[in-house]
Amino acid sequence: MTSKPIRAIVVGGTGYTGAELLRLVLGHPSLQLVSVVGNTTAGRNIADVLPSLRGIVEGSVQPFDPETIVEKADVAFCALPHAASAEAVNALRRRGQKVFDLSADFRFDDLSVYETWYGKHTVPERLSEAVYGLVELHREELRTADLVAVPGCYPTASTLALAPLVESGLIRLDGIVVDAKSGVSGAGRGVSSSTHFPETAEGVRAYKAGVHRHGPEIEQELSQLAGVPVTIAFVPHLLPMTRGLLATCYAQVADSKVTAAACTAAARALYAGSPSVYVLDEGQHPDTLWVRGSNRVHLAYARDPHSGMVIAMSAIDNLIKGASGQAIQCVNVRFGLDEGAGLQAPAQWP
Amino acid sequence: MTSKPIRAIVVGGTGYTGAELLRLVLGHPSLQLVSVVGNTTAGRNIADVLPSLRGIVEGSVQPFDPETIVEKADVAFCALPHAASAEAVNALRRRGQKVFDLSADFRFDDLSVYETWYGKHTVPERLSEAVYGLVELHREELRTADLVAVPGCYPTASTLALAPLVESGLIRLDGIVVDAKSGVSGAGRGVSSSTHFPETAEGVRAYKAGVHRHGPEIEQELSQLAGVPVTIAFVPHLLPMTRGLLATCYAQVADSKVTAAACTAAARALYAGSPSVYVLDEGQHPDTLWVRGSNRVHLAYARDPHSGMVIAMSAIDNLIKGASGQAIQCVNVRFGLDEGAGLQAPAQWP
Amino acid sequence: MTSKPIRAIVVGGTGYTGAELLRLVLGHPSLQLVSVVGNTTAGRNIADVLPSLRGIVEGSVQPFDPETIVEKADVAFCALPHAASAEAVNALRRRGQKVFDLSADFRFDDLSVYETWYGKHTVPERLSEAVYGLVELHREELRTADLVAVPGCYPTASTLALAPLVESGLIRLDGIVVDAKSGVSGAGRGVSSSTHFPETAEGVRAYKAGVHRHGPEIEQELSQLAGVPVTIAFVPHLLPMTRGLLATCYAQVADSKVTAAACTAAARALYAGSPSVYVLDEGQHPDTLWVRGSNRVHLAYARDPHSGMVIAMSAIDNLIKGASGQAIQCVNVRFGLDEGAGLQAPAQWP
Amino acid sequence: MTSKPIRAIVVGGTGYTGAELLRLVLGHPSLQLVSVVGNTTAGRNIADVLPSLRGIVEGSVQPFDPETIVEKADVAFCALPHAASAEAVNALRRRGQKVFDLSADFRFDDLSVYETWYGKHTVPERLSEAVYGLVELHREELRTADLVAVPGCYPTASTLALAPLVESGLIRLDGIVVDAKSGVSGAGRGVSSSTHFPETAEGVRAYKAGVHRHGPEIEQELSQLAGVPVTIAFVPHLLPMTRGLLATCYAQVADSKVTAAACTAAARALYAGSPSVYVLDEGQHPDTLWVRGSNRVHLAYARDPHSGMVIAMSAIDNLIKGASGQAIQCVNVRFGLDEGAGLQAPAQWP
Repeated sequence: MTSKPIRAIVVGGTGYTGAELLRLVLGHPSLQLVSVVGNTTAGRNIADVLPSLRGIVEGSVQPFDPETIVEKADVAFCALPHAASAEAVNALRRRGQKVFDLSADFRFDDLSVYETWYGKHTVPERLSEAVYGLVELHREELRTADLVAVPGCYPTASTLALAPLVESGLIRLDGIVVDAKSGVSGAGRGVSSSTHFPETAEGVRAYKAGVHRHGPEIEQELSQLAGVPVTIAFVPHLLPMTRGLLATCYAQVADSKVTAAACTAAARALYAGSPSVYVLDEGQHPDTLWVRGSNRVHLAYARDPHSGMVIAMSAIDNLIKGASGQAIQCVNVRFGLDEGAGLQAPAQWP
Repeated sequence: MTSKPIRAIVVGGTGYTGAELLRLVLGHPSLQLVSVVGNTTAGRNIADVLPSLRGIVEGSVQPFDPETIVEKADVAFCALPHAASAEAVNALRRRGQKVFDLSADFRFDDLSVYETWYGKHTVPERLSEAVYGLVELHREELRTADLVAVPGCYPTASTLALAPLVESGLIRLDGIVVDAKSGVSGAGRGVSSSTHFPETAEGVRAYKAGVHRHGPEIEQELSQLAGVPVTIAFVPHLLPMTRGLLATCYAQVADSKVTAAACTAAARALYAGSPSVYVLDEGQHPDTLWVRGSNRVHLAYARDPHSGMVIAMSAIDNLIKGASGQAIQCVNVRFGLDEGAGLQAPAQWP
Repeated sequence: MTSKPIRAIVVGGTGYTGAELLRLVLGHPSLQLVSVVGNTTAGRNIADVLPSLRGIVEGSVQPFDPETIVEKADVAFCALPHAASAEAVNALRRRGQKVFDLSADFRFDDLSVYETWYGKHTVPERLSEAVYGLVELHREELRTADLVAVPGCYPTASTLALAPLVESGLIRLDGIVVDAKSGVSGAGRGVSSSTHFPETAEGVRAYKAGVHRHGPEIEQELSQLAGVPVTIAFVPHLLPMTRGLLATCYAQVADSKVTAAACTAAARALYAGSPSVYVLDEGQHPDTLWVRGSNRVHLAYARDPHSGMVIAMSAIDNLIKGASGQAIQCVNVRFGLDEGAGLQAPAQWP
Repeated sequence: MTSKPIRAIVVGGTGYTGAELLRLVLGHPSLQLVSVVGNTTAGRNIADVLPSLRGIVEGSVQPFDPETIVEKADVAFCALPHAASAEAVNALRRRGQKVFDLSADFRFDDLSVYETWYGKHTVPERLSEAVYGLVELHREELRTADLVAVPGCYPTASTLALAPLVESGLIRLDGIVVDAKSGVSGAGRGVSSSTHFPETAEGVRAYKAGVHRHGPEIEQELSQLAGVPVTIAFVPHLLPMTRGLLATCYAQVADSKVTAAACTAAARALYAGSPSVYVLDEGQHPDTLWVRGSNRVHLAYARDPHSGMVIAMSAIDNLIKGASGQAIQCVNVRFGLDEGAGLQAPAQWP
């Protein structure tokens, strides 16, 4: 444990990713929770908004005040909706605060792509400042980043599954399919008929097939790795479970001699120094239950004997490795801590 | 209603598809349940094995005796495991009984494909006699079939989604991906750790990626439609729900001008006379909840703007349109009844 | 089948009980659906509001117009919220329409009890006209009733479990406990954080312990049977499942010689002519899965050897025997049809 | 952190409570996992049996050898089935090992009660040596205990809810009802049709109503507190969720002036020094989701205005506070550590 803890504030701390950030900060050996900031919940007792913290966290949710945050904290996590986040991040960055942002606002290199999918960006000048917080692919840049754009669940699972194949030239870069299956917590704490229990339990459906805004984000990362544009067909699905995300990815092989073993070896090589990633043996399949409640990624590769395509599978906990755990992992790298500090717990299975 | 009911026996009536057959036969205007035959449960009260029939069905499960079956019934449904089914079907067919078999034993035209995936076939000479019981594609042949091989949930959903695209030449026949998501009832009534509640609820996983034996069955049907071999990458997934099956299929367009509208129109044309199929408008997505408890199929088509691929989606209830309802539908066609007789109930929603 | 069908209208047809009413009316041999009436959904296609009816029901949701209803229908089902229902029912009754109301508005004999729990009643003069629609206990009165107050899920399950014990004098009338467990569909189609999937799945909680308004309704029915006031401690619980309701009831025996066998016999005697009720043998326990999708009630009785208390258990499908199926059952009785007409389907298991 | 860690071995480490023990020991500041012992899994890689430990724990499951255990470990956790546990515990105790046993074998003071419910006890002479491991009620005895009988989920939740009422004389000691609702993980890792997903999801049922063997265990603890025999009617229920246990308890008040406030105050007084227990305000209801994944207990009290009965509600995570977390809590007390060491994580919500 460091003698002097790193003081942390969670802005937007009362949604699902906020709650998970609080839990992880509370259990972290070097982080100290100094405040919880919320928009609609300001003034309420934290434990009334998040009853899992009854008897654990005292005090009330604070309104957003950048001056106070900068004074009290060494690091701010931002778990606000996009657009709102851009404003808050800007206010904090102008005062020199290190910010780990979980929104989409600073994930894109190309402003026009952002604006196609999310609308007008209010602080485009900060895009270039941000580092994409997928530690396994951007570890070196993150060591000095003061604005980190932490990716969400779909891009994390999909990119980690496909990156070794793209980087090693094992697959063709057209006709890639990402079929992703998410638990309902990915939709957030806001209620709607599409997440109402009786209309969600016992059913499955795709949504925004081909037009979900995480598609271009996955394309950005893979294209950067490939050095040329990569396009994917991305279809997210909502599953009747709270947590967990499985991405099943399909790609044509670059060469008919590519094997599942070669894919597995490429992944093991790429992630050799990555404590959160585990690559399964051929014939095994990742199960989201085996990573639920942890910051871990389970990957596996197969080659389909019929079509010859490669199948890459990736399982994460959407709220941890797909959000809050990943933000902590970025903080660990930025502050020179052990990358897995506070993130070593295995899944809470079953 | 026919003045003289069609007498039906269900062989293997105490598993999930058997139970669903009993429910459908009981509610059918022209079928009369005369007996329930079971292997391991013979001699027990039907309502002790299937408590949903308490107060509804009297009598005990009967042992398998082909002479008795032929005497008492006009039609036999067989819901036995493969191999066991072949034996039973053969014994019934030798006595002239009309059989609707829900196993895999008579679904393949090519013996070698069957034996690659299921092992030695004991009555290969009957393969040519069987008609594949996917009514929407084999209606005419089924009118005179005495041995019907009723397809299961994965081939039904996948084939119905892709058939219009293949038949109309809208897609390329290589690089097709079928990513299928199934409820746990598809695995049957036998217990195992992979269907144990705590290891199934709240999780999702692929299984037998690329090597599931329903892949070649889908290929057979699509190849027959195409007139040339079609290969697919087929990956089934187990979802934390009891019923429902969603197939999400991806294919390269044959021509860059192919639109989602063209796919939708092709499906509406192909299924114009099919009361069980409904094709949604573009932008809509099938949800298994909307067909749960019914014999219906909901289809939808999209075109992905990134990769240009077509996305075909198909939702069914795996135990009804993917098994028992489909068998009833075949009986209806075979006996000249209304195709939807006893199958018109909408989903039990929610 | 009657040569001349009974024409039915469903007012409030687009919530969960409305949807289930539509499904049951569509499958009923003597009822004919003539119209669906909705408040907030008027003008929309029925199948857009209830996609399970795509390809099955044409036409749009109608606004509420009592004149039209009386002209077009022989019977009106009302599935509106309380208070709104009283108004609609009154408008229909003034025009002589037979009404089967699923709200609480006409369930109480005692106006003051109603107003304590639901607020001001706008048409108290009609309370005396209504018959409580629990067929098993009010069959004779229902044969001539023109206004039927169909009870909901908690009172149905609890009252049917306890009635034989109260009626036969087997239990003491104080210290009765009803611990009831309901699926989430009982809370209706309106969204809220308490029915948001991630905050409902994988958890259980009591709500309104001791102060839920179905408590006094159960007390009314049992008191009427007993001839003296009965009080109960009633605690409802929300379970992570869509459908199903289990009531576990506890009572002190009136006499130390009372046995589970005596309770079972009392129930079998009381429900001898009731096709929807099945009383299990001692040692068996009702499971909501075995009645899910049916209009059936499974009851069982045990005597606890420690405390000497009787345990009465009751399982129903909350949307069918606890709402819409029960309304149909009342119609059957009122119109002299077979009591089980359109309600004979066994559970959709699993 | 202690300079010299306490070396721990988990016997029966590959079931659900074993897995949870491993997770908690791995995250504990003063415990060091030295070995995992298993019966049927000996020789297999730990991470093949428990894939959540892939990349985290190396080595294979060890066969049970008491000599080795005593040499390598300061403390042994036993998570074996009853009877098997008695043998193993005896072998370890004879060699002086401190044992924290999660089976029922040493929970009863009265041999005859044990043998009525569990069969012949092979080492009855050790019953008197064991201390019942419910820290909140036995903290002082546990400080010197070398054999701790850790209670399971039902007795923990029920006893903690009722103890303050019994101890303060607020309730009558006859006619107490405990209606308990458990997640399926409480049934263990062994498969059976009663825990097969399709026959468990979407349903609820009581089991062993009045004759479950945890009833007498609750009675033992409450009787000890009361100083006179207490009898309860105990009915466990299986709910469609993996983790979580809610006990809803009902009791007649000792005096008509008893209020919910008095009950709440009694609980707050009794548990004032207990870091795992939180007593909610009147009008609130415990939800198992708010404690899922934690060692915490949420309690609440209400008084029913109809019957006058007190309602005591208690929510825990059955695998943590109802099993493995409780064992760790006992170790903390026995070794003079902070009672909450390694157990402070809030629930993983949602």
